[in-house]
Amino acid sequence: MPSYTAPAKDAQFILHDVLKVSAQDIPGYPELEPDFTGAVLEEAGKIASEVLHPLNVVGDQEGCRLENGVVYTPKGFKDAFEQVKEGGWPGIDMPEEFGGQNMPYVIGTAVGEFFSAANQAFTMYQGLTHGAASAILAHGTDEQKATYLPNMVSCQWTGTMNLTEPHCGTDLGLMRTKAEPQDDGSFRISGQKIFISSGDHDMAENIVHLVLAKIPGGPEGIKGVSLFIVPKFLVNEDGSLGERNGVSVGKIEEKMGIHGNSTCVMNYDGAVGWLLGEEHKGMRAMFTMMNEARVGVGMQGLAQADAAYQNALEYAKDRLQGRDVTGAKNPDGPADPLIVHPDIRRSLMDQKSFAEGARAFLLWGATLIDQAHRAGDKDADGLISLMTPVIKGFLTDQGYDMTVQAQQVYGGHGYIEEWGMSQYTRDARIAMIYEGANGVQALDLVGRKLGQHGGKYVLAFFDMVKSFCQENKDVSDDFTKDFIKPLQAASKDLQAAGMFFMQSGMKDPNQALAGSYDFMHLFGHVCLGLMWARMGKAAQEALDAGAGDAAFYETKLATGRYYMARRLPATKLHLARIESGAETVMALDADAF
Amino acid sequence: MPSYTAPAKDAQFILHDVLKVSAQDIPGYPELEPDFTGAVLEEAGKIASEVLHPLNVVGDQEGCRLENGVVYTPKGFKDAFEQVKEGGWPGIDMPEEFGGQNMPYVIGTAVGEFFSAANQAFTMYQGLTHGAASAILAHGTDEQKATYLPNMVSCQWTGTMNLTEPHCGTDLGLMRTKAEPQDDGSFRISGQKIFISSGDHDMAENIVHLVLAKIPGGPEGIKGVSLFIVPKFLVNEDGSLGERNGVSVGKIEEKMGIHGNSTCVMNYDGAVGWLLGEEHKGMRAMFTMMNEARVGVGMQGLAQADAAYQNALEYAKDRLQGRDVTGAKNPDGPADPLIVHPDIRRSLMDQKSFAEGARAFLLWGATLIDQAHRAGDKDADGLISLMTPVIKGFLTDQGYDMTVQAQQVYGGHGYIEEWGMSQYTRDARIAMIYEGANGVQALDLVGRKLGQHGGKYVLAFFDMVKSFCQENKDVSDDFTKDFIKPLQAASKDLQAAGMFFMQSGMKDPNQALAGSYDFMHLFGHVCLGLMWARMGKAAQEALDAGAGDAAFYETKLATGRYYMARRLPATKLHLARIESGAETVMALDADAF
Repeated sequence: MPSYTAPAKDAQFILHDVLKVSAQDIPGYPELEPDFTGAVLEEAGKIASEVLHPLNVVGDQEGCRLENGVVYTPKGFKDAFEQVKEGGWPGIDMPEEFGGQNMPYVIGTAVGEFFSAANQAFTMYQGLTHGAASAILAHGTDEQKATYLPNMVSCQWTGTMNLTEPHCGTDLGLMRTKAEPQDDGSFRISGQKIFISSGDHDMAENIVHLVLAKIPGGPEGIKGVSLFIVPKFLVNEDGSLGERNGVSVGKIEEKMGIHGNSTCVMNYDGAVGWLLGEEHKGMRAMFTMMNEARVGVGMQGLAQADAAYQNALEYAKDRLQGRDVTGAKNPDGPADPLIVHPDIRRSLMDQKSFAEGARAFLLWGATLIDQAHRAGDKDADGLISLMTPVIKGFLTDQGYDMTVQAQQVYGGHGYIEEWGMSQYTRDARIAMIYEGANGVQALDLVGRKLGQHGGKYVLAFFDMVKSFCQENKDVSDDFTKDFIKPLQAASKDLQAAGMFFMQSGMKDPNQALAGSYDFMHLFGHVCLGLMWARMGKAAQEALDAGAGDAAFYETKLATGRYYMARRLPATKLHLARIESGAETVMALDADAF
Repeated sequence: MPSYTAPAKDAQFILHDVLKVSAQDIPGYPELEPDFTGAVLEEAGKIASEVLHPLNVVGDQEGCRLENGVVYTPKGFKDAFEQVKEGGWPGIDMPEEFGGQNMPYVIGTAVGEFFSAANQAFTMYQGLTHGAASAILAHGTDEQKATYLPNMVSCQWTGTMNLTEPHCGTDLGLMRTKAEPQDDGSFRISGQKIFISSGDHDMAENIVHLVLAKIPGGPEGIKGVSLFIVPKFLVNEDGSLGERNGVSVGKIEEKMGIHGNSTCVMNYDGAVGWLLGEEHKGMRAMFTMMNEARVGVGMQGLAQADAAYQNALEYAKDRLQGRDVTGAKNPDGPADPLIVHPDIRRSLMDQKSFAEGARAFLLWGATLIDQAHRAGDKDADGLISLMTPVIKGFLTDQGYDMTVQAQQVYGGHGYIEEWGMSQYTRDARIAMIYEGANGVQALDLVGRKLGQHGGKYVLAFFDMVKSFCQENKDVSDDFTKDFIKPLQAASKDLQAAGMFFMQSGMKDPNQALAGSYDFMHLFGHVCLGLMWARMGKAAQEALDAGAGDAAFYETKLATGRYYMARRLPATKLHLARIESGAETVMALDADAF
């Protein structure tokens, strides 16, 4: 049975030593003193380890079941959900006027990682609710906000996102679900939606479905899609629950993982709905949820990787097998622990350096979101908009690979469900797919985000790297060699890739799109390289200042050196693939395959 | 529901256009005329598609069950196994004197790929039997051969390999299973073995377990391990089955995949066994099985990748989603098929170029085995011994990645069990683990094989690459640019890595071992690069000779160009990681993680 300990100390290091959050001029940030965030993270870590984690395997093994139209979650989920609600965790970064705690998004993100790592399937019930509430917050009328938000912020009611239909996922313009306008201003929604996470369950009094549908007579394709609020139970004027709406569960899907989350086929049979935002502008409103959800999915990639890594590390320390070739490390025992073997080290260092780098990247991204939303900073908004597909695509691909590596450390036991490592892999797999498959993220990045405002935001990113390197060129010769030089080289690869797209993509967009997936990974590595350089510098400063816990900072530097030496050179391969162009990719006719 | 069509045409191309098997001076090879192998492969493909493949999903969903000590395989397995036996497939490359068909190993391998791709869990029953029979063939007494082989070659009786115990897998020296010598020359075996594939089932009259155990009083550790034949039912002198032996199934493991194969905990309680080979030389005898099994597992990596690819390709052609950015390709339809999108192409080309390259690598490896065994060629034996960990480790790692990519093409549907793509991923996962986890393969390659006979075999490999490049330098400027130059560059990277190990690994073995995993992949890429160059040349020759089916050869060349341009440059990254040395890998104390 796996275990999980929330990496609160590492999150504190990133928040305070690296990002220096309480010194930042963003509303709410000055209150983020180390003692305060430390207390929040400690408490969140406890819930994660003690309440959510023990249900992770239970959820996987038991799954959800549909009986007479009612979905039942695995044993223990309901009680745990009550505890999470009581602690006020779902509304941690929601406005106080709706019952939230109004903390910055960065804190919600740090907590979210712990919860997701402890139990991804469980945490999705609250995560989807958060996304739906954000969309209502951004696009709802005052009445809609008053009706739904207090109950959603507390998770008395949960939320869902309904986009996909059997014949369309990415290409939502093909959607068939209809919304017929009624005389009272409401709509009647009819159609089938699939892959609806947390679509129905027994843990909330009501479920607020946000549903994309087409109003007949509207524009063709994606420009005729509107967003609707469709509650499971209609809400009376006094706020009490009224009659059951015309929405029902067709079935629960059998999935590779996240069995504890009810992924439903939802049937809408003339269900009553209310327009959220403007007619035919549903995609815009949905993207409020989607961008948040994409960052949240990137977080899941990191979370599963870290949880799996923690267990692989323990196993590598405990399991005795073989001898250190340079001399026995456990001479009195029958064999040495796995961790003495260089290739096991390599794997553990891959995992460790990814998880810590990804955490920094994610929390940095969260500060950009706060800067954009709380301080109205348009540049931060542009930068995080550029980064969102990188956070989603890179962190989930790499996070998945790391769960596979963690499973591998267990040898044969990694393949046996009893040991729990297969679940990390199976659960992590979905994050590469949902909220826009990673190929779509790459397309969004290269086809849309990169060129926005004449490439303003990617240029800002390059400036950021350049400034960092310039400002820290005199830290030490070692720092320059271990961190600055590799970061500069990687950043140069990223610039060369961008240049290739500019020059070749103008004439033929396929030249850019054929390299989009590599570009997403190239970009991700440079981001983690920048994060490791910033963490390395913070660790070096702490050591120079004689801070306590020197061992922590030394380990941080060593882990960073590993990333820079062993992981970051991947940028060269991605660049080579990009620069090889589209010819070999597009050479075959479809029939020639 | 996925489909599967055996790639008989591609196998024919490799056997005849590339490897020119019937022209090779190996006993049995002159008979391998295209008509003959074509007929065999066609028939095997039919069995694979029509008999084995339909049971693949059944096996996954139903799994095996243990009832009152008896293991039942999924519905339909027994009938299918009868059909496979009737066709004589299990003994295709076994000696005629024991009822086999005595065809070369390369034919068994080609057929094995089809069977494994169609149903890996099912094919393992026969695969393990083949391995056990090979060990008896190589190390058994005449009496043992006469007693067991005819029934094993026909799969009336099946076989197993019993190595792992709960506390030891890789480090078999720690084993506790005991073999007490008896007065009649037999032994009494006691202990527990785990992860025993095909450990028990209802498809054979008897099961012949090959069990590693220690004879009390023998040498410590791995040097005191012996191999025993322990049949489920004792065999009377007249060959009829006698009483039940003291071996029983403790439980069937719940696994991530290959549910159709019964992975058992086997309990030996004073079971009667007979020594196979010499006392305390059990590892040597076991390695007869293991090397064959490792090549077979590499084959599984390819097989799952190809089966998954076939389905991803069909889905990409059928599923309408989005539009080609360069102009609609299906203007009368609601959207274009997925295959128009460059990133879907990239993924399909990754898969296609891997599968075809891997098939050539595998079949080439099989010819080396034939050359070694049938023609007694020691150099071929040395080369395939060097290649075995590469075939196992590289093909299973890459094969797994390709199943993940194939699953990804399906978007959300890839995560739903109903569509069958998750099974390819889950089934393929085991191949990276069993028969020596891939980290152990890397250790075997770098720590043991590379330096054998002063590096004679790796030098022979480099010579082979060099000769190919030299002999084909005048094929055409395009061929030189597209194939020769990339192959030379990749081979240079491999040589540089070997040089680094020589220079640094002498002083500190960790310098070599820290790069062992990267070396295994670097080597694998160069092998596939060589295979693609050879295939490219064969395709070019066929085109120049005006062979029919020019489209096939053009596609082959285009696929090869893709591999050389997009996949082979990975060698640079692996070399960079290797040359970064062991320092960053080994920097942390175990407690500092």
